Amino acid sequence: MNSNTRTELSEIGELGLIERLKAFLPSKSENIIKSIGDDAAVIKNSDDSVQLISTDLLMEGVHFDLAYSPLRHLGYKAIAVNVSDIAAMFGTPSHIVVGLALSNRFSVEAIEELYAGMKLACDAYSIDLVGGDTTSSRSGLGISVTVVGTAQQAEVVYRSGAQVNDLICVTGDLGAAFMGLQVLEREKQVYLANPEMQPELLGKDYIVERQLRPEARIDVVKSLKSLGLKPTSMIDISDGLASELMHICKESNVGAYIYEDKIPVDPLTFETAREFDLDPLTIMMNGGEDYELLFTIPQSDYEKVRNHPDISVIGYIKAADEGVNIYTKGDNLTAVTAQGWSHFKA
Amino acid sequence: MNSNTRTELSEIGELGLIERLKAFLPSKSENIIKSIGDDAAVIKNSDDSVQLISTDLLMEGVHFDLAYSPLRHLGYKAIAVNVSDIAAMFGTPSHIVVGLALSNRFSVEAIEELYAGMKLACDAYSIDLVGGDTTSSRSGLGISVTVVGTAQQAEVVYRSGAQVNDLICVTGDLGAAFMGLQVLEREKQVYLANPEMQPELLGKDYIVERQLRPEARIDVVKSLKSLGLKPTSMIDISDGLASELMHICKESNVGAYIYEDKIPVDPLTFETAREFDLDPLTIMMNGGEDYELLFTIPQSDYEKVRNHPDISVIGYIKAADEGVNIYTKGDNLTAVTAQGWSHFKA
Repeated sequence: MNSNTRTELSEIGELGLIERLKAFLPSKSENIIKSIGDDAAVIKNSDDSVQLISTDLLMEGVHFDLAYSPLRHLGYKAIAVNVSDIAAMFGTPSHIVVGLALSNRFSVEAIEELYAGMKLACDAYSIDLVGGDTTSSRSGLGISVTVVGTAQQAEVVYRSGAQVNDLICVTGDLGAAFMGLQVLEREKQVYLANPEMQPELLGKDYIVERQLRPEARIDVVKSLKSLGLKPTSMIDISDGLASELMHICKESNVGAYIYEDKIPVDPLTFETAREFDLDPLTIMMNGGEDYELLFTIPQSDYEKVRNHPDISVIGYIKAADEGVNIYTKGDNLTAVTAQGWSHFKA
Repeated sequence: MNSNTRTELSEIGELGLIERLKAFLPSKSENIIKSIGDDAAVIKNSDDSVQLISTDLLMEGVHFDLAYSPLRHLGYKAIAVNVSDIAAMFGTPSHIVVGLALSNRFSVEAIEELYAGMKLACDAYSIDLVGGDTTSSRSGLGISVTVVGTAQQAEVVYRSGAQVNDLICVTGDLGAAFMGLQVLEREKQVYLANPEMQPELLGKDYIVERQLRPEARIDVVKSLKSLGLKPTSMIDISDGLASELMHICKESNVGAYIYEDKIPVDPLTFETAREFDLDPLTIMMNGGEDYELLFTIPQSDYEKVRNHPDISVIGYIKAADEGVNIYTKGDNLTAVTAQGWSHFKA
């Protein structure tokens, strides 16, 4: 190292790191329409289409715990979370490559379970696994997935397109994956304390499945396209609603007002949050890994989504100087802060 | 897991694993020209061009040792080894995405060193880093790189095209990266035994650099194209000449004869092998990580490569039933066995 300065990752966080690394990566080719800073990079093809590409690296002990993640679900999830990035660009995923770092504790049969899950996901999203790399690991399991998708250049939706007065929409319901994780963690602790105890997951199926086997909302992308509706901005909710809304507002240089009572939440998520003495609003705002879509549409398109079973309108875009705020149920206006997930926090 | 059988990875090795996993991955799309089984996957674009895509996952303690790998060199190498896969398809690399799994022991400045090396490589190979993922790791450093390249469909060179009587060629010289690793490992042991000792790398620069900062032979691909020469088959030498030659012979359903005295080796590699009491031939045949290219050409193209400073003709392709053999210096004919590198061997 040339420098004597030592800056800890925890001081600047993942976003701060990305900002600093951007300096190393000026795009050389004029074909690079978008590089770092959206859900996927966008590269122009020779015709009017573009290539979308995104990569994720999932590490044991950070992104998953094999104590409660069945390998088949894990394989499915590894694909789904990448496909979700292509969905968030309003694109169509086409193929993926997978890298696996495996320690000797994995049997061939265990790896086949992982692949069986990946194959299920590939089938569900109509994509092909075209290549990969398998290697050994000194410690835990590592899974890298890179997904390639396509779109017409004019069709791509960025984080940066939200306009003042646009409606803010989310798909599905929020917070379930986070509460599923809490239930799994609790049962793991119970099991560790007493391996004779059976896990009490009864009645928690929905939120546990949301954690272990999330879906990419390619179905909603298709549905919006068939409605002739192109969002003005879009992002997938991997780090929590608050954090993703802040991304859209920052990239679009706008503010936002959202309403607590409009945020979609499953009753089981709500009840389980109470059971854990957690504030349901915090869970809805900051619970990550739902992989739902957050997007904005012009008010003139409201009729197209009004009765859509998978879409909730939760607020609208304001000018940047109005900030990003939420009307809570008590009618208090509170600033949204992006708590999100920071892998690097101490 | 559904099965009670437990097959250890070490029983079947990486190639055996890939064979078993192929069963999970039938290609759905007719655009997939080649999936698993070559240096990169080949996907047809809407015109006459194809997309090439390849991924590698590098893990600390398996692929590199930070005790002697400067982060800047490591960043360079991570890109070069991926670009090499595109070179081996006779394609042109265009862009990459990178995933990093980092533990807290890495400072921001350390990560910037890694990126500085990646940027150097991107500049050297005229490619763009367009996106990535940074996450934390519970243990070592993990680096995933996915590279995308392009080629005209008719231009792609596969492992499977070698014909009887073709000449077998290699670029550069072989075994240097492996001997560089031996020197680095020796100095590490000396250092661990006595941290006051300075490493004795004097005079070993060439082989140490071949280990720490290999180059992808994109220059040779360009040179062959400008000579109007399209190889009949090609592969990059990541696991050693013997192993890669066996791949070409298996995929092309042919045999081969090569000659020990034709295999290019640097004098320093030879001397260092002797110094370590290692057989230079074993090093030339099985030393990995040189990232040179192994390819076959029709005999009619011999004049085009005869005086090429970076290309050696080392033998020729025979019928499959003649096997894969080497004439050693003592004029003994010996069967080549693919020792290579197996990450999963116990």
